[in-house]
Order: sequence, then structure tokens, then C-alpha cells
Amino acid sequence: MNVPSPALPTFADVEAAARRLTGKAIVTPLLESAALDRLVGGRVLVKAEVLQVTGSFKFRGAYNAIATLDPAARARGVVAFSSGNHAQGVAAAAHTLGTSSVIVMPADAPAVKREGTESWGARIVPYDRTTDDREAIARRIAAEEGRALIAPFDDAGVIAGQGTVGLEIARQAAALGVRPDALLVPCGGGGLVAGCSLAFKARLPATAIYACEPEGFDDTALSLATGERQGNRPGASSIADALLAPMPGAITFAINRRNLAGGLVVTDGEAMAAMAAAFRHLKIVVEPGGAVALAAVLAGRFDARGKTVAVVASGGNVDPATYARAIGG
Amino acid sequence: MNVPSPALPTFADVEAAARRLTGKAIVTPLLESAALDRLVGGRVLVKAEVLQVTGSFKFRGAYNAIATLDPAARARGVVAFSSGNHAQGVAAAAHTLGTSSVIVMPADAPAVKREGTESWGARIVPYDRTTDDREAIARRIAAEEGRALIAPFDDAGVIAGQGTVGLEIARQAAALGVRPDALLVPCGGGGLVAGCSLAFKARLPATAIYACEPEGFDDTALSLATGERQGNRPGASSIADALLAPMPGAITFAINRRNLAGGLVVTDGEAMAAMAAAFRHLKIVVEPGGAVALAAVLAGRFDARGKTVAVVASGGNVDPATYARAIGG
Repeated sequence: MNVPSPALPTFADVEAAARRLTGKAIVTPLLESAALDRLVGGRVLVKAEVLQVTGSFKFRGAYNAIATLDPAARARGVVAFSSGNHAQGVAAAAHTLGTSSVIVMPADAPAVKREGTESWGARIVPYDRTTDDREAIARRIAAEEGRALIAPFDDAGVIAGQGTVGLEIARQAAALGVRPDALLVPCGGGGLVAGCSLAFKARLPATAIYACEPEGFDDTALSLATGERQGNRPGASSIADALLAPMPGAITFAINRRNLAGGLVVTDGEAMAAMAAAFRHLKIVVEPGGAVALAAVLAGRFDARGKTVAVVASGGNVDPATYARAIGG
Repeated sequence: MNVPSPALPTFADVEAAARRLTGKAIVTPLLESAALDRLVGGRVLVKAEVLQVTGSFKFRGAYNAIATLDPAARARGVVAFSSGNHAQGVAAAAHTLGTSSVIVMPADAPAVKREGTESWGARIVPYDRTTDDREAIARRIAAEEGRALIAPFDDAGVIAGQGTVGLEIARQAAALGVRPDALLVPCGGGGLVAGCSLAFKARLPATAIYACEPEGFDDTALSLATGERQGNRPGASSIADALLAPMPGAITFAINRRNLAGGLVVTDGEAMAAMAAAFRHLKIVVEPGGAVALAAVLAGRFDARGKTVAVVASGGNVDPATYARAIGG
């Protein structure tokens, strides 16, 4: 695609985001389990972003983006479109920073995500995932109400905020005296893995970084393989509702093309098995999209034997019925 | 009851246990949720011991007790009786300290607890909860094999180890600039709440400390109310399999009688509702017995309005079917 060359965020932007987020975002723990290690024949470090404010990493990027708006713009409020986790992240960040938010959200988003968003005082504007253009709706609200649009992933401030996940992993691994051989990160539009790659290239440049995606939504894997941005084939479906972005972002892909070793793809069944493993061995609640990186290790999509692998468990906002099915209850 | 006056552990013992556990036990996070705060009209701090090694706080006391055996005794191995969490804690601590363990465990213990215990290399000796005397079985194995018996709660070393939970809460609350009005702790035999009370009386003496128990197993609440150790009435049952000890320990009650403000009792339904709230708002997996302190706050057994309350989520080892039922899946 022919797009203007965007300004790419840098490691300095990630460090600045980390300073802004101090005392606002949770420094989530890096968990381990002897049982998981035995299962894969290596050492698995799990970054538990499910314990983040709003139950996913999205609070970090949203907070950083809103905090860096100029005060007059911030006072007019923000608008975002999201299947759920970015929605909650923007709503909570706007609330924390004393401004208002409007969220354009699919009418069929999981109830737990819709209610979580409303609980932060956001106004919800529903849309039909099959017929409406959510981005157009959000841009109209932005124009009509003077609100700043907080993009879900293709924004330098958002990417820098998500990168604080990678910065924390690097610090926590250093505290353990460990240099991970690989970092595996769930990937929708690619903001989290792009941000984490900025931190790792500065702090742990030898670590191989992989974007992990659900089957049918492997646009980043395809794009990395071909060297150009590719969209997903139409008609696919996945249980990983957080990772259904149609194609990589211009900014995220410009970073990921440079920094990533490749893409790994897992089935819905493998994602659900990873949710069950996290239930049993880590005692954290992980949603399908949040479990794809752990799934890639457990299903052998990445061979972790004899290696140390850091994986991000990126979100835990899942409806009880889906969760019960995943854990076999 | 007429028992010899036992040597009571002190705050110095808790501090010594904390030094031994450094780098062995996880410093578990103190979690918060704006949604939980809104539900109770106060501030709730949740100590997530479900994230501890073996999925419960029991690793702390077991490790401290085994670490303080003399080397010759430690080399002969240990034996314990437990419904599951102490079993896993002893098995993991023995493994970590390079010795062997035998666990006397009810034949009907949750599969997740039995398998967790075996995964640490322990030998399991099953018994019938209704007909066998598990303590007698464990004492016979101790005598025959020269193993040290690691008591589940009524032991100074075990209590001091569990007390490191309280020490961490006190430090983490100080880092937040908070002095909790109350500390609520799940209570079976009373080791965890006794240990935590040693830390709190030294560091946060104004905090009111409560033991939380399931209905039908409120022996500590009854004992605190009457000033003497009382057993549970026979025939009761509860979903909180971790908290079914028949009566308070001599050592634990000697501490708890002095340090606790009282006992709070919750129903099985209230415990399950708290498990669902932790699933939804905290993204941690809590077992029924681990959820009774959070349940006491959410069900209004303790009135948290306008207060800051620290609660311990003490364990997360629960079978999928029970968990699915609790979260409404």
C-alpha cells in the first residue's frame, strides 16, 4: 500500500511512557510454573497483563496517548473504536486523566467488555460488525464533538505505551538473571508487539521476537513473510475476539518488519488449551486472544525445548460461558 | 482443653522466615479493582496468594519449617497430612530443599490438588476421610521412616512462614501510603491468620484482624467468642475443602485469642459469588476456601463502607467443574 511515511516511535518514547505510567499502570508480575516448564521442556516466563487496570495491556497505550494530548484537546474528551479491550483502556485512562470518552463498540462485543467500559463512565455507541464502518463513525463523532480519536494500535503514543510491557519484562528478566531466547506476543493490529520490540531491541537485542495470531487472522505473519502489508482473507472467524484487526497498521508494520523474527499462528483449540493451562498452573484468567502466545509455546508452534521463552498473557476479559468451555468445566 | 503451654512464635520469627523465603517464595501482588471498590463502597486490597508457588500460601510455612530442620533430619525426609494445599506446599518445599516427602491425603481430595502434589515428586498415601485417622497414619510413617512430621498449622515454624504474607501486605500497603482499617484472612486451623497477626501487631497495630470461615466450620469464630477452643459440630459440609479443620490449634488459638478482633462466617453461596467477582474484576482464579475473606467483604459480613480493607485470597486450586459452577458458566 502507498501510505505517507509515518513518524515511528523510538525506545526513548517507550521510556517516557514508562515515566508517565508510574503509579498509574500496574507493574504486572512475570509468573512461572514448574509444571508449565516440564510440559514444554524449557523455561516459560508469563507476563500477566491480565492483572493490569481494566484486565488488559490496553490501558497503557491509551493512558500514554491521552496524557500527551495538549490540555485543551484533552479537556474536549476522546473517542475510540474497539472490540472491547482498547475500549476499556481508553475509558479508564480518560477517567483517570479527568476527561470524557465515547466508545464505538460492536453490538456483539462480550458483555464483560461492554459493562467494563460503561463502568468507567464512557458513552457507548454500538455498531454492526458486518455492515457499519466503525472508523467512519468514530471520525464523525470526533469532528462533531471536537474529540481526539485514540487509535487502537496505529499511533506512536499508543505503541510507546504498550512498549512499557516489554520494558518491564526486560527489567524483570534481568532481576531473575535471565536473557530470554524468545519473546512471544499476541498480535491483532500489532501495537503491543511493536512497542515491546522497541524495548527489547534496546535492552535484549539477541532475543527473537514473534507475533502470535489466531488462525484466519494471520495478517501480520503473512505480511512479515511477504515483506508487504497483507489483509486477512474475508469470512474467517475466531474465538479470539481481541485479535480480529483486518490488517497490520502502517506504523506497527514498519516497526515489526524491522524488529520481528516472524509470525506464529495457533488454532482456537490451542488458544483454549492455553487458557486451561493458565487456569490450572498459573491461576490467572486469560481470554482467548490473550492466550495465543502461551498457546504457541504449549502447542509446539515455537519449540521451547532447552530455551527460556517470555510470553505475554495480554488480556483476561472473557465471558463465563466461554471460559467454562475452555477449562473443561 | 488442658494442653501444655506451647512456645509461641514471635514477630522476629516471621522476619527470619521472610529472609529464608527470599528468592524462593513469590512476593505476590496486592491487587485492586475500581469495580470492587464501587461494589463495597470502600477500598479493597486483595493479596493474591493464588499466584504463590503451588497456588496457595502453604508453600511459605512448609518451606520455613523444613528449612529449619537440622540437616540430618531434613535428609531423612518429611511427612504431612493435608486435604491438598499443605500437601502441595510440603511437596514443593521438600523438592526445593532437596529432600523427599510423603503426603497422607484424603481419597476424595480434588484431582487438581492430588496431581499437583504428585508433580513435585511426593509419595501419596490415601485415607478415608470418614473412617481413618490421618494424623495417626502420618505419625506411624514418621516413626517407621524417620521422617519429620510437618504439621499443617499448629507449628511455630509453619505459622512464622505463613506470617510473611502479613509482612508483605504491611510493606505493600505502606508503599501505597495506606493503613488498612481491617485485615480479613481465610481460616481453617488458623495458621495463616495467626502468622499474619504477628506481622500486623508489629507493623500495623491499629488494624482490626478477622478470621474468615465457612458456615458449619466456624470453630475459630466460636472459640474467639467463648475464649476457649471449640470444635465444629459434626455432620457439617462445605464447598471450602481447604478450611475443614476440626478445631483451632493450641498454638494458633493462643495467638489468635490475643490478636484477633473476631471471626466472620460466610455461606458456600457467598464464597462462590466471591470467586465469580475475582474472575470478573481481578482476573485471578480463587478456590472456595481461598475466597471466604473476599466473600465476607462482598456479602457485607464486614461493613467496608468508607474503609480500607486488606483481604487474603489464599489459594486457587479448584477443579474446573466447581469453578465453572461458581462463575456461572
